[in-house]
Amino acid sequence: MSHPTHASLRDLEHHGAFIERHIGPDDAEIARMLHTIGHASLESMTDAIVPGSIKSTAPLALPEAITEEDALARIRAIADRNQVFRSFIGQGYYGTFTPNVILRNILENPAWYTAYTPYQAEISQGRMEALINFQTLCADLTGMDIANASLLDEATAAAEAMTLARRSAKAKGNVVVVFGDAHPQTIEVMRTRAEPLGLVIKLADSAEAWDAAIAADDYFAALIQYPASSGWLMDWSEETAKIHAKHALAIFATDLLALTLLKTPGEMGADIVIGNSQRFGVPFGFGGPHAAFMACRDAYKRSMPGRLIGVSVDAQGNTAYRLTLQTREQHIRREKATSNICTAQVLLAVMASMYAVYHGPDGLVRIASRVARLTAILKAGLQQLGFSASHHDSAFDTISLKTGDRTDALAARAVSLGANLRKAWDEYLCISLDETTTRADIELLWRIFGGDDATLPSIDALDANAPSLIPETLRRTSPFLTHPVFNSHHSEHEMLRYMRALADKDLAMDRTMIPLGSCTMKLNATAEMIPVTWPEFANIHPFAPAAQTQGYQELITGLEAQLAEITGYDAVSLQPNSGAQGEYAGLLAIRAYHQSRGEGHRDICLIPESAHGTNPASAHLCGMKVVVTKCDANGNVDLEDIRAQAAKHSANLAAIMLTYPSTHGVFEEDVVAICDIVHQHGGQVYTDGANMNALVGVAKPGKWGSDVSHLNLHKTFCIPHGGGGPGVGPCAVRSHLAPFLPGALGNDGARTQGTGNGAMVSAATFGSASILPISWMYITLMGQQGLRKATQVALLNANYIARRLDAHYPTLYTGRNGLVAHECILDLRPLKDSTGISAEDVAKRLIDFGFHAPTLSFPVSGTLMVEPTESESQGELDRFIDAMIQIRDEIRAIENGQLDREDNPLKNAPHTATTVTASEWTHAYPRELAAFPLASLKLQKYWPPVARVDNVYGDKNIMCACIPVDAYKEDVEA
Amino acid sequence: MSHPTHASLRDLEHHGAFIERHIGPDDAEIARMLHTIGHASLESMTDAIVPGSIKSTAPLALPEAITEEDALARIRAIADRNQVFRSFIGQGYYGTFTPNVILRNILENPAWYTAYTPYQAEISQGRMEALINFQTLCADLTGMDIANASLLDEATAAAEAMTLARRSAKAKGNVVVVFGDAHPQTIEVMRTRAEPLGLVIKLADSAEAWDAAIAADDYFAALIQYPASSGWLMDWSEETAKIHAKHALAIFATDLLALTLLKTPGEMGADIVIGNSQRFGVPFGFGGPHAAFMACRDAYKRSMPGRLIGVSVDAQGNTAYRLTLQTREQHIRREKATSNICTAQVLLAVMASMYAVYHGPDGLVRIASRVARLTAILKAGLQQLGFSASHHDSAFDTISLKTGDRTDALAARAVSLGANLRKAWDEYLCISLDETTTRADIELLWRIFGGDDATLPSIDALDANAPSLIPETLRRTSPFLTHPVFNSHHSEHEMLRYMRALADKDLAMDRTMIPLGSCTMKLNATAEMIPVTWPEFANIHPFAPAAQTQGYQELITGLEAQLAEITGYDAVSLQPNSGAQGEYAGLLAIRAYHQSRGEGHRDICLIPESAHGTNPASAHLCGMKVVVTKCDANGNVDLEDIRAQAAKHSANLAAIMLTYPSTHGVFEEDVVAICDIVHQHGGQVYTDGANMNALVGVAKPGKWGSDVSHLNLHKTFCIPHGGGGPGVGPCAVRSHLAPFLPGALGNDGARTQGTGNGAMVSAATFGSASILPISWMYITLMGQQGLRKATQVALLNANYIARRLDAHYPTLYTGRNGLVAHECILDLRPLKDSTGISAEDVAKRLIDFGFHAPTLSFPVSGTLMVEPTESESQGELDRFIDAMIQIRDEIRAIENGQLDREDNPLKNAPHTATTVTASEWTHAYPRELAAFPLASLKLQKYWPPVARVDNVYGDKNIMCACIPVDAYKEDVEA
Repeated sequence: MSHPTHASLRDLEHHGAFIERHIGPDDAEIARMLHTIGHASLESMTDAIVPGSIKSTAPLALPEAITEEDALARIRAIADRNQVFRSFIGQGYYGTFTPNVILRNILENPAWYTAYTPYQAEISQGRMEALINFQTLCADLTGMDIANASLLDEATAAAEAMTLARRSAKAKGNVVVVFGDAHPQTIEVMRTRAEPLGLVIKLADSAEAWDAAIAADDYFAALIQYPASSGWLMDWSEETAKIHAKHALAIFATDLLALTLLKTPGEMGADIVIGNSQRFGVPFGFGGPHAAFMACRDAYKRSMPGRLIGVSVDAQGNTAYRLTLQTREQHIRREKATSNICTAQVLLAVMASMYAVYHGPDGLVRIASRVARLTAILKAGLQQLGFSASHHDSAFDTISLKTGDRTDALAARAVSLGANLRKAWDEYLCISLDETTTRADIELLWRIFGGDDATLPSIDALDANAPSLIPETLRRTSPFLTHPVFNSHHSEHEMLRYMRALADKDLAMDRTMIPLGSCTMKLNATAEMIPVTWPEFANIHPFAPAAQTQGYQELITGLEAQLAEITGYDAVSLQPNSGAQGEYAGLLAIRAYHQSRGEGHRDICLIPESAHGTNPASAHLCGMKVVVTKCDANGNVDLEDIRAQAAKHSANLAAIMLTYPSTHGVFEEDVVAICDIVHQHGGQVYTDGANMNALVGVAKPGKWGSDVSHLNLHKTFCIPHGGGGPGVGPCAVRSHLAPFLPGALGNDGARTQGTGNGAMVSAATFGSASILPISWMYITLMGQQGLRKATQVALLNANYIARRLDAHYPTLYTGRNGLVAHECILDLRPLKDSTGISAEDVAKRLIDFGFHAPTLSFPVSGTLMVEPTESESQGELDRFIDAMIQIRDEIRAIENGQLDREDNPLKNAPHTATTVTASEWTHAYPRELAAFPLASLKLQKYWPPVARVDNVYGDKNIMCACIPVDAYKEDVEA
Repeated sequence: MSHPTHASLRDLEHHGAFIERHIGPDDAEIARMLHTIGHASLESMTDAIVPGSIKSTAPLALPEAITEEDALARIRAIADRNQVFRSFIGQGYYGTFTPNVILRNILENPAWYTAYTPYQAEISQGRMEALINFQTLCADLTGMDIANASLLDEATAAAEAMTLARRSAKAKGNVVVVFGDAHPQTIEVMRTRAEPLGLVIKLADSAEAWDAAIAADDYFAALIQYPASSGWLMDWSEETAKIHAKHALAIFATDLLALTLLKTPGEMGADIVIGNSQRFGVPFGFGGPHAAFMACRDAYKRSMPGRLIGVSVDAQGNTAYRLTLQTREQHIRREKATSNICTAQVLLAVMASMYAVYHGPDGLVRIASRVARLTAILKAGLQQLGFSASHHDSAFDTISLKTGDRTDALAARAVSLGANLRKAWDEYLCISLDETTTRADIELLWRIFGGDDATLPSIDALDANAPSLIPETLRRTSPFLTHPVFNSHHSEHEMLRYMRALADKDLAMDRTMIPLGSCTMKLNATAEMIPVTWPEFANIHPFAPAAQTQGYQELITGLEAQLAEITGYDAVSLQPNSGAQGEYAGLLAIRAYHQSRGEGHRDICLIPESAHGTNPASAHLCGMKVVVTKCDANGNVDLEDIRAQAAKHSANLAAIMLTYPSTHGVFEEDVVAICDIVHQHGGQVYTDGANMNALVGVAKPGKWGSDVSHLNLHKTFCIPHGGGGPGVGPCAVRSHLAPFLPGALGNDGARTQGTGNGAMVSAATFGSASILPISWMYITLMGQQGLRKATQVALLNANYIARRLDAHYPTLYTGRNGLVAHECILDLRPLKDSTGISAEDVAKRLIDFGFHAPTLSFPVSGTLMVEPTESESQGELDRFIDAMIQIRDEIRAIENGQLDREDNPLKNAPHTATTVTASEWTHAYPRELAAFPLASLKLQKYWPPVARVDNVYGDKNIMCACIPVDAYKEDVEA
């Protein structure tokens, strides 16, 4: 221990304290680990790994690290520049109360927010139960057969519904009819998605236009917004019949809360229903993240995009959840895919589902009825004050008033009284009410319209007289949420315990490292998370006037500048709300750039064969043709093949898509040369930012010749994975592409300037704005030196694992000097040959040790890809290494014949408590080896709630709603 | 499902929504449970239970219930009336940064804050490890042999040290010498405690007075504050030698952060050391709660008050923690006890210990060194500006300036610049720095003293030149916190996982009901907890000027009024920070009242034999003599014996202490008559408020004749138990006693008016002020009707359990109509006779079912006292009942000979996973019966981390510090 009594103040101030909290190993551990891999310093190791041609020579032009307290004070000042007004804007986003017990025990609880996508079913049963509740919620309320969990936002869900319809409809046309009174951002994003695919949006912005469009033979789908964006309701049954008569599909965009009171889209003949669950307890967040959903008829379930939780059985025959139909669009069809969806909005879907569990059907009906009653009272009062609502008499929560040339003045008066209204079609004002609306709000609205001197109507008097705005024929009669899970947890204790019980079934980063190659499961520090739930960030409507969002603008501008400096690009758009969206936005920018130069014919995209399936899918979605280039025996891209293909397609070369460091975990040497080749042939270079965690502070793609990248803020920049979302996938470009970054929409539905003026890819201008504070905090906390050190320790940790495990599991690919980048691929294929033990068996066996498995069979089948990240201490790495060595010893025992080839702890992994404690133990190895293969497990043991889940059964027997209670009973009685 | 489309707005508004969240059973469950106990309504049940003589006829004069959102908005407005200034006041309370990862994962985490006192060792290993870390921290830093965990505040710890010294010292005198430069509140509370016990405080407020006092022969202890309250330091070794020469004990009040740099009290010969751990990451909170501590020489450990965690072994021979030496003062000595301590400050001690785990010794030294360096720079700069510090040259964090007649003006100038200083001894200002002090703060202080136009010194220049204020001879050289636990968890991931791992070992209310009779473990709702960590409540110094604490004053006045209305008393003091303190304050008020009427001779206190040990202990502490009265065969107090004793002691009767409903869980009929009798003989009636949860809204002790009660806000009013503290024990009195409620102290050390002007019982005027929002929120949320309904459902739940279990375990005592109050005593004594199964065996067996046991063997040995509270749903009650019936069936199997009398699942309970999964299973019953006695456990199973803990071993082999790492190794290798 040092006794720095004589240290100077400067030595003692320790502004970089957070760096030591974020980075797992301390200096002593770093020294020991460097020794293991044979390097004297992080710098010499970095020199050995990173090619000189790309290495940054100057430090990042970012401030020094600051403390958690200082960073929180700084972002507090930024938050204070946002102003929380009463919002009556609606337009797809509504005020809601997050139940406090859910706020604190889900959104603010690392057991939930640090979890990963539930690919490993056995350690993900808790959140999959929450997600199957979400699916049940969406299917029940929409009246459809099946629903997914979840999609990015309502607008992209509509776009996904459009392409699903194109894949599924019998009608042959390329037209989508879109009901004109749909949310403007939905129409905008559908337009974006349609155009490169050769689809045509026909906007039906009058009854006549609708009738004509529906009567035509050129369309394969029609989208209806119900309730309409401006609020009115009608029974669409006859319209869907007409649509079906044309063999086209009827897509409904809807509102879950309204559907607690309304006849369902399913009852009206909908084929696909989409919407947002935001108002089920998820704050505005300036536009996101929220969980959108898609529900559909049973016939389309195998084509549905996004994640779908299904019910299967485990090795003991017990009911178990799993991700079903996971061989998704982009993996099957790659360059023919019409969806590139990966990320879902799991954390938000969990919150929304818990909101439904908490309120139950009766509570939801009560909330919706109150909203509807207030809307009727509001409207009646406005009529008394001389304002008539527009032509429609029906409404759930929204009324629109034709205000003509008084529109701007009234909107301004509302703002002066602390309220925001929605302007629409130049001469209308729309008012949307929600769960948070009070009597005082109604009076405020009357005062806005009636003037300061008006005598306000009596709420109670109107309540007695004002008619319901929901027509009798549209009132819901069908039951919903009848499953016990929605009818049992209504006291706070029951709710709290239900959430805790689910969380306890799962393994998240609050219990173990999650060493997932390419997914960068690093620390999501508490100080980074704290601002997210501040009201000044949480309670801002995405279309709030700019004067009220100065704090967000400062934060966003600052984060864009930070990311530009880190990546070496010139401009950044934060609109894409997933990595795949960012990739899509980047390719759209390339496409628009070529078009702007009169080279719109350029449509060839080179993609190495090692690429993630999302790459070719995104290229196809952008109207490009994919040409696959080869990789060599070392897993590197084949420079000569790229040279040849670029030359061959020179006239039409649009782009190349690279991942760097490669998906094989290697810093390839040729990247600068490849950029030169592509540029020579008129193409643009797209660099996938998935592996940016190996580059920050060390090399900048924007400086070595790349033109565009997406980043994953939920990987490199510390936004937690949330159990499979939210994500943020900013698109970063060099200056010539900046004008083509995504544009934005004002709250009057008109286009405004976003970061660029390109096509909108997400519903909200800044995508998942409310979680951007996390990345801003991370970069601010780490500063110039901390960010670089994090990268170096990420490299060190990966190489330490590779070296320590080398004698047991050889690393498949290495780069310069025999070193890997920030991840290593452990080759288990020889073991499969010799013992029958698969990489999956090892992955499942790791659960018995309390670990989440590394990435399984990606990018190479039969391997495990390990990415420890910088946030794991040597102690944690050693714990993992010990487990892997013990597993290797078990495999050796199979090789030696000491363990049986079929009945061994790997094949039977994971082992549940009920199995190991059963009186009957028939296995050829002892119980202790099953449950406590290392002595340290006796001090801390995770018990998986289910045994190995049967994937085939689940895909054959699709069941995606809450399990009937009897099934549980059978399990426990078995 | 109802479809209230036609419901009115008023029907739909549901302002009482929280009531349904707090109360576990819904209306359908309530109806079913009423049916079980044979009543048609809650009202008829209440009429059957509560004697008409005490039943309230009017509803509580409190507002209606409001929603969580409205209540949070209201308390937000109150919080905004507090102003957070920079605090340089010190005086025992210092600014600190709560590490965010600890804030969110301990203080805001129900797994920690809803836990109970660790009496059931097997389900409390996690928090006991945290507490043993606390003990190690305190013992290491003070240089003492052993430390406890924990005491209420530094002042009461000093008072406890005084009485411990009186119990332990060989010297015979009744004088305690108190160093004059001690914290004023410490002196004040020592005075309070000394007087009724016949002890005399001799305040040595000059060097000469000290020398004379220490040379005298009349004292048994001397208290030294080191560092002094005004900041200076000296080596007290020679003084302790002089004290020891008189066979008196040397008590040190000290500062843990200072001791990271300073020679320890232990090295100076201290016998007892006390202090506060507040600045280890626990916010000011306007005075509390914080964890104080006591450390002492090994010789005094068996006399030490407060909770002590020790190391023992479990039934498997593995290391396990337990509360050691739990047969505490008040239980052993009852009416001769000199401590009545029950509650500790567990949650805060856990936080402080985690702060030390997080920073480790090097981090603590760095923080302390920075504080010391800033202090030296501050002082040197003030000298440049013409202000000389007072006579002493040494300091750690505090300097005092003789400011003479400028004192008030300078203090006011500080306030005008946003800073608070401490005024002392009329003409001094003291400035204390802390972990949060910045360079800007130093410049602010210079500006305060130098004036607006002063040229401020250069911090860096002074840093280079200003000498250290810690004398060479006082610098610490001894190591501390060398145990690995303080040197391993410094990254946030490691810290997060350590806290989660500990929490997972324990059972708290986020996993199960805790049906503890007399302890009222009810819902601690999230909405109640949220305001506690708002900076406007958390960051207010207890001696901040009143103008800055308007919000607290509004809250406190409001809560006092709420509690007065609920109890029927006229005045309430919130100063007592535990139930025992409240009891003490109430008896002090009675004592002062008698004295004020010239009847100071009244000193007889009648206490029924069924009373909790704290009652006679408190009476003795107040200088009263206890006369024990009898109970009858039904467990009720014996009216005739009370009548006789009151008559016998009529001339000297001071008080009677009753518990109501009785400790036997019964509404006794005679309470009004007893009040009359006692009053007739000139005595006062004290009603213990432990069972207030059976009375709120139903009956008011202040109206049926009682004169004073303490309440337990941590029982009836929803402050969480925190694993064994914090508690709040308000003292409520009728108007004639109001003047004698505790007084208060200003930040100049002078007495000011508190609620009353009686003796101070706690260091801070409002005790544990920062948790008062919890009870305010509860009362505000529940409103008039909710509070009454809560009481009724608490009665219903208890009677439901009693009825359902009656055939299996008879209820020992019932009251009117065969009904119990809010708890029931299950008589297990006949089973012990027939099968050898004890109540403890049943308690331990409940752990295998995932339950915390009910109260064991209190108030009747061999019984379990069950208090379900209103917050548990019928589902949870049934789960408990099912477990109890299954256990009864197991006992029947022993009776039948189907299970062995010695080797059965009860005697061997609880069963750990390692036991049940061991290859060798030698028990006479199957593994499944051990681990999964009910099928539902297969869906959710809590595994205790240790088997039954050996109490005798632990008390024989006292070991109260962190376990050497080798011990763990042996465990896992065993």
